Amino acid sequence: MYWSNTLVPTMKEIPEGAEIPSHILMLRAGLVAQVMAGAYTYLPLGLRSLHKATEIVRAEMNFVGANELLMSAICPISLYEQTNRVEAFGNVLIKADLLRGNKKVRVVFCPTHEEEVTDLVSRFISSYRQLPIILYQIQTKFRNEERPRFGVLRTSEFLMKDAYSFHTSIESLGETYQKMYEAYCKIFNRCGLPFIAVEAESGPIGGDASHEFMTLSANGEDKVVYCEQCGYAANMEKAEIGSHSCDLAQKNVQLKEIVELDTPEVHTVEQVCKFLKVKPTKLIKTLIYVADGKPVAVLIRGDHEANEYKIKRQLEVEKLELASPELIERVTGAPVGFAGPIRMIEKIPIHADTCVMEIDNAIVGANKPDKHLVNVNTMRDFMPERIGDFRNVVSGDACPRCSAAVTVRNAIEVGHVFKLGTKYADRLNAKFLDADESQKTIIMGCYGIGINRIIAGVVESSHDDVGIIWPVNLAPFEVVICPMKITDEATMQLTEKLHDELWKCGVDCIVDDRDQRAGVKFKDADLIGFPLRIVIGEKGLVEDKIEIKWRWEKETTMIPIENAAEQIITLIKTERNTNEKFSNFNQKNLQN
Amino acid sequence: MYWSNTLVPTMKEIPEGAEIPSHILMLRAGLVAQVMAGAYTYLPLGLRSLHKATEIVRAEMNFVGANELLMSAICPISLYEQTNRVEAFGNVLIKADLLRGNKKVRVVFCPTHEEEVTDLVSRFISSYRQLPIILYQIQTKFRNEERPRFGVLRTSEFLMKDAYSFHTSIESLGETYQKMYEAYCKIFNRCGLPFIAVEAESGPIGGDASHEFMTLSANGEDKVVYCEQCGYAANMEKAEIGSHSCDLAQKNVQLKEIVELDTPEVHTVEQVCKFLKVKPTKLIKTLIYVADGKPVAVLIRGDHEANEYKIKRQLEVEKLELASPELIERVTGAPVGFAGPIRMIEKIPIHADTCVMEIDNAIVGANKPDKHLVNVNTMRDFMPERIGDFRNVVSGDACPRCSAAVTVRNAIEVGHVFKLGTKYADRLNAKFLDADESQKTIIMGCYGIGINRIIAGVVESSHDDVGIIWPVNLAPFEVVICPMKITDEATMQLTEKLHDELWKCGVDCIVDDRDQRAGVKFKDADLIGFPLRIVIGEKGLVEDKIEIKWRWEKETTMIPIENAAEQIITLIKTERNTNEKFSNFNQKNLQN
Repeated sequence: MYWSNTLVPTMKEIPEGAEIPSHILMLRAGLVAQVMAGAYTYLPLGLRSLHKATEIVRAEMNFVGANELLMSAICPISLYEQTNRVEAFGNVLIKADLLRGNKKVRVVFCPTHEEEVTDLVSRFISSYRQLPIILYQIQTKFRNEERPRFGVLRTSEFLMKDAYSFHTSIESLGETYQKMYEAYCKIFNRCGLPFIAVEAESGPIGGDASHEFMTLSANGEDKVVYCEQCGYAANMEKAEIGSHSCDLAQKNVQLKEIVELDTPEVHTVEQVCKFLKVKPTKLIKTLIYVADGKPVAVLIRGDHEANEYKIKRQLEVEKLELASPELIERVTGAPVGFAGPIRMIEKIPIHADTCVMEIDNAIVGANKPDKHLVNVNTMRDFMPERIGDFRNVVSGDACPRCSAAVTVRNAIEVGHVFKLGTKYADRLNAKFLDADESQKTIIMGCYGIGINRIIAGVVESSHDDVGIIWPVNLAPFEVVICPMKITDEATMQLTEKLHDELWKCGVDCIVDDRDQRAGVKFKDADLIGFPLRIVIGEKGLVEDKIEIKWRWEKETTMIPIENAAEQIITLIKTERNTNEKFSNFNQKNLQN
Repeated sequence: MYWSNTLVPTMKEIPEGAEIPSHILMLRAGLVAQVMAGAYTYLPLGLRSLHKATEIVRAEMNFVGANELLMSAICPISLYEQTNRVEAFGNVLIKADLLRGNKKVRVVFCPTHEEEVTDLVSRFISSYRQLPIILYQIQTKFRNEERPRFGVLRTSEFLMKDAYSFHTSIESLGETYQKMYEAYCKIFNRCGLPFIAVEAESGPIGGDASHEFMTLSANGEDKVVYCEQCGYAANMEKAEIGSHSCDLAQKNVQLKEIVELDTPEVHTVEQVCKFLKVKPTKLIKTLIYVADGKPVAVLIRGDHEANEYKIKRQLEVEKLELASPELIERVTGAPVGFAGPIRMIEKIPIHADTCVMEIDNAIVGANKPDKHLVNVNTMRDFMPERIGDFRNVVSGDACPRCSAAVTVRNAIEVGHVFKLGTKYADRLNAKFLDADESQKTIIMGCYGIGINRIIAGVVESSHDDVGIIWPVNLAPFEVVICPMKITDEATMQLTEKLHDELWKCGVDCIVDDRDQRAGVKFKDADLIGFPLRIVIGEKGLVEDKIEIKWRWEKETTMIPIENAAEQIITLIKTERNTNEKFSNFNQKNLQN
């Protein structure tokens, strides 16, 4: 490939609106171009990387015996109504009316394909003999992003590998789940993407029934909890908290008398702390929720965040929402910001996070407008109905496995494996006749990878001040050849020969045949991040040598022209199998 | 690949609603499954064929130096407003509102990408040094089909290869156009699809500026005109008519006096012929159009069809519509069905098709309700303002090149190459700085292939009573191995060995490892249409032989087990390069 025949619109400036490295660098390197908020075009070089990631995903899916198919992107909305997901997806679901004659056909542009694939299987699979089976596709998904941002990380259309497995038993699902889990590890390793697999909310089957694959990144929108000591890892929704995590309680502290204070217009934790000159650890937040239709109070320490997944799980409710200001006022007698636990148990149940129990002489809302109480003590002044783990982990909390201090890190989700159980099969009537002649519901798993996110994730984790540093397996081209003087015949003859020899042996390379100074070519080569740069210069030619340099090294090396192609091919082929340096993130096997 | 690990839902019955062979066979062979009217899922075997066609298209595009990219499917509607195509596409354009916060973002799901690609180029190409360039993508397109039908031939989403070329001059466009034309011929040949390239409506650049690639098929919805004598081929819109094509005129016939007849409730040509017991060749249809806002009359012989493209071209108007019943009544004084040319020239211009001029004692509407005139003669009774070719070709008309009789055949459009000129570049402001420092508008070409239609087209053209006959290059698997007794260890060992050896050498095969009778396996093999069938039976094993059979031959051959894999690999590799037998349709080079 020659630079002058393709479109590589690199740019020097940081594009407007781009904030994070992957977004900035993918635009600057001419890999993608924005069409509108949340929609990008993959330019020739970006698409090459995307295709390489796609082929790695495809190869590993085929390796575990998954069958590729391609479902329609358009789907009748009725399928989503059957699974109640029109409401569940809300604004995210993109709908359209197709006018056909006098009829309006309401369709959705699928955000994922559980509905279509389950419907398909319900029509074509009827016997245990046809199971287990894994079906997957690599396809553009559509989701309305309320706040599209961060380049290709959060868009309204994106390339996804979504796989679905179908089973006669939980054991069979478990086996496939494990195979897919391992395939995912291989995929991210081959892509040179550092990742951790974290436990995630598990849904109906419980246990270790869901894992997210995350790449740590300061710019990630997800949070994961990670223990360096034992390797425990979970996402924020799921992460448990070990004991001894709230040793703030001062033993033998003197319990003082409750005092009611005027706190005009002081609603938030921050405002209370400022007004009363105390730390948020002295505060108890009283959150009013509606849990399956009934109001409840949940107490959380002022510096902590409530975790609604944990609250739902422990209260054993399906639906949990923060109460409306009107309801809060009715229940507490005060506007938002002044709720407190004193005498509340007479009205609604109180559930307290463990850490709340250890605050002495705490500050709470007085259940009156513009009033707070100080010196409130649990047990003495109020008694919660239930004490439990209702909050998000913070760095320093104890690991639930080994009690060492965990850290909370930002991360980007790149994959997800999930034991679905019979949720979709039940609703879409996917049944099979078992060996014992009885009708049973098919048991399902689902497994997704965001392929664009692999690309952005690699750029996030592998770049420096001047540009991207691609692992060979995902690089748009493995090699860039820079002839220094494009008007020199000897230079260009050698360039062409080398280019052709590399391609013939399956090494992809691009020739920067622009009439530009060396500095411009080198800057663009570094910006785009081709793994190996070859410079063909007049000085070297005199000595029958050319210069090579890895993107991640400082030194250049001169190699003889004679067997240059051979040597480069060997270098690249070796590098293809050893790009673990890109994914050498602490990867204890988190699951064993 | 083993049958028991994948999903091949073959069926015996003709599926409801399926009418044409490709639709019936693709469903019966388990290649596709319908999701809703106009949307299909490609099942594992169907997707393999689709991927093979895709890879052939991709390889030939890359070969001519086209650069693959991937544009977003979602596009702001404003781009389509700039080119006036919201109106032009009408109902075909699928629109949706994305709710983002309080804002509604109106988008379209692109039916094609002239707008997006021109916008892209206007942002990233500014100099003649960057031109020419060819950009292409392989992507799902979305078009609301008012009447989805014929399986994957007419759907609301489909896989398209769309390429766009950008040039500084008409000559440069011409060169690329020729290269793309040749690439298309190679693609369809490699796919084993019989095709003809036909001249099509040419748009702004004129001349031979547009060709459609058609595969002849009784079930095609397009019509092409073809001359076996000289190879002239054009689509119906474009096809010209040679001279001497309406020699129906009886020379020296006696011109009779006009008579007005009562023809109550007799509106259509058919009704008039029946009522007056005459042939439609005696009738003159008087069609009232509105041409760029002004009413005109066009006269066509009763058995002919008006060709609106020709009318537009000759009248040099942009917009042409049939007049409303109200306007017809106002202009002619009679309701629809009774218009005639007599005394009409005083009101609106009359344009007559050449063949109309040669009808003696013709029948026309009387411009009065329920009245017709007989014995009307051109020149004597009325004089058209213009005489020309205003009608569709019919079989037997003279070829415009060699005057031999042409034939009209049904066909399926599978590709289209088009010289766009500056239509989109003008509207989207895509300009470049030429070598002479002047700003000029970029000149464009566009080139589309419907990849699903290649698949359906091949099935339409290559099947028999029992199933599909795949050319090796598009077959889901090149080889099917049928072990006769799956419980026999020797059989299954040999099966596995052969399977592995074939895959290792790049021949793809599927093992029918179902516990089924030979008849069932053979029927499915024939239905799906694998090119080569291998039978491993106990009788053969005794003689150390296996049976092979091509799908398109009747005879089976026994070959020794010893070097069976080698022999089969050679057979398949030879066949890959010689599948022109599938496309041996009369293919004179139509353009030279």
